[in-house]
Amino acid sequence: MVTSKPQPDSNSKVLVLGAGNFGSCLASHLGDSQHDVFMWAREPDLIKHFNLHHRNPIYLVDHDFPQNIAAVGPEQPDKEFIDKMDVLLFAIPTQFLRANLEQIRPKLDINNLPLLIFVNKGIEIGTHALTLEIIADTCGPDIAKAATFISGPSFAKEIVERQPTSVSVASFTESEAVKAANLFHQPHFRCYTGGDPIGIELSGALKNVYAIASGMSDGLGFLNNTRAMIITRGLAEMTCIGTAYGASPLTFLGLSGVGDLFLTCSSSNSRNYTVGYRLGKGESLETIMKTLGSVAEGVSTTKAVKKVVDDLGVSAPIASSVYDVLYNGKDTKLAVRQLMELPPSRELELPPTAGGPARQLLRKLGLENTDLNTIMHPHL
Amino acid sequence: MVTSKPQPDSNSKVLVLGAGNFGSCLASHLGDSQHDVFMWAREPDLIKHFNLHHRNPIYLVDHDFPQNIAAVGPEQPDKEFIDKMDVLLFAIPTQFLRANLEQIRPKLDINNLPLLIFVNKGIEIGTHALTLEIIADTCGPDIAKAATFISGPSFAKEIVERQPTSVSVASFTESEAVKAANLFHQPHFRCYTGGDPIGIELSGALKNVYAIASGMSDGLGFLNNTRAMIITRGLAEMTCIGTAYGASPLTFLGLSGVGDLFLTCSSSNSRNYTVGYRLGKGESLETIMKTLGSVAEGVSTTKAVKKVVDDLGVSAPIASSVYDVLYNGKDTKLAVRQLMELPPSRELELPPTAGGPARQLLRKLGLENTDLNTIMHPHL
Repeated sequence: MVTSKPQPDSNSKVLVLGAGNFGSCLASHLGDSQHDVFMWAREPDLIKHFNLHHRNPIYLVDHDFPQNIAAVGPEQPDKEFIDKMDVLLFAIPTQFLRANLEQIRPKLDINNLPLLIFVNKGIEIGTHALTLEIIADTCGPDIAKAATFISGPSFAKEIVERQPTSVSVASFTESEAVKAANLFHQPHFRCYTGGDPIGIELSGALKNVYAIASGMSDGLGFLNNTRAMIITRGLAEMTCIGTAYGASPLTFLGLSGVGDLFLTCSSSNSRNYTVGYRLGKGESLETIMKTLGSVAEGVSTTKAVKKVVDDLGVSAPIASSVYDVLYNGKDTKLAVRQLMELPPSRELELPPTAGGPARQLLRKLGLENTDLNTIMHPHL
Repeated sequence: MVTSKPQPDSNSKVLVLGAGNFGSCLASHLGDSQHDVFMWAREPDLIKHFNLHHRNPIYLVDHDFPQNIAAVGPEQPDKEFIDKMDVLLFAIPTQFLRANLEQIRPKLDINNLPLLIFVNKGIEIGTHALTLEIIADTCGPDIAKAATFISGPSFAKEIVERQPTSVSVASFTESEAVKAANLFHQPHFRCYTGGDPIGIELSGALKNVYAIASGMSDGLGFLNNTRAMIITRGLAEMTCIGTAYGASPLTFLGLSGVGDLFLTCSSSNSRNYTVGYRLGKGESLETIMKTLGSVAEGVSTTKAVKKVVDDLGVSAPIASSVYDVLYNGKDTKLAVRQLMELPPSRELELPPTAGGPARQLLRKLGLENTDLNTIMHPHL
């Protein structure tokens, strides 16, 4: 079993790859936790500005970053640099991850491996691969098994203000998840460990689809009962899709599932919610995308989710309605009416945990003899 | 197996017992759904006013009730009246239910039984009994097995405005749950059926404890990440308590679990949230209770939950903190700090589904040979 090098008792050397909203925020949190942080950015101006003023000119612009963070780049750091790192934290959008990992793989020494942490969410367009699979494809199954994933209800702006926050940390290698949790854990930032990285990744991607639905409902003028219904039925759909995929239904009860779903669905700070809200108010997707000013990952995720849902043959009426509104020009009011007019049903019909896609992924990781039901539902 | 009489195709005769906020609202919804509704109240003035003006002078005061609802009382209707009913809907606070059921039991003809629906939430003070047990004690196990329970995210004011709403309907007798769902189901009021009435009841009671915690956090000035954390960790606690009790963990993923928890924890319309909010702002419980103007069920439920948690030996730090704030004068800030300072842990450690209390209850219902794991987790 591949594991990362032992972490020092304090002052871990961390390279954060990516200087976006969430990458900067985690760099700040780790600097604030007395680690030595390097933040790789691709924009020379950003690097210069950051090292001079300890401010990010694009994200969290009012925040004073700790002095122990240095911006590096614009070239990806070399092997010698990476060899010195205790931790690599990937805060790179899913669609750019594969290219970055291909470039970094030759610089990784498996006998001196840094702790690998991934915080991106989403499904790769074209391949429909989860991050775990992208890692396996580019770095091999052993490194993928040692990778850790962090997800949970965590607005960046609140983390840098030390607002109490909790997240899930998952890996197929429990000792790696514990290392990542210890690195991040603070009284104002609690980390809970778990062993279902597939569920963590799926819930992180899926929740954005339901955030669009929730925003749509609010935009149409519906009230609290309706929003609670969409969140709950959305959660039931996420859990069904996840279980059919091969994740544990219980993961969806956690911080990366219901916690992040709740946060994303109930705040106008969420870009995906905002897309839905404006659709509900009658704007066209084209206008919204032109004026939003940043990417709403849920829009492309919805397309990938639709494909996954169809392949798995599970019923996901809310996700399908969001897809029809986004890509088939369906009227939002009609979509809601049709959802409400579905025949009565049992509340939670979990598909048998056949878990085809997860099984394929486990095979890729050399975990093909694992009984999904025992690792995934240890207590049921 | 005892089942209720067949329902007519339309125009069921429904007696709603209780004319409070939720009883009136459901009477209105059923009248609006073309059923013939009788609403029993104990206040002669309310009865007179309602029948004259089709308005409830105390609850939902601006709402015009449908003309096909008649208020009856103040005496509990007699056997002849009850024999004519297709449905009895109990909207009586848990603490008064036992006395009412004792009075109604001699009027129930087991061969001509109306459909029995219960919508109260809470745990009986003193006995710590759930409604299911109160029914078994007063009406016998056969009637308890046929009883149905409705719960979910449903503010009364929004239901009478036909805002889209969804609820869970559960019974040990699935055909009865389906009957209750059909009675209530409308395009703006969706009913989902399930087979875990114990989980439905527990989640309905437990959520009020976490609504107090969520209000407290908001009152102390914490933001979105913190509220999402409390709701999610509260849900994990509810699920652990429920599983140790013998309910299905999946029930807590449903409308009566996470759905109602989300609604209650995120709205100042909730009395329990308000109690927590004012505690967070520094008011004493005594002042709050004196000036609240109505009962916050969570305050007494917290005491019962503390007893249940201690008896089961499960860890429920949030519920225990709420108990200490309410009953041991603990400072709210200190309570939050101590919660955040707990050591890191795994995310969801479900206790083995020993389910002692549920097992005892099932024995009372003559279901002692039931394998909890198959009825509760049919798909796992």
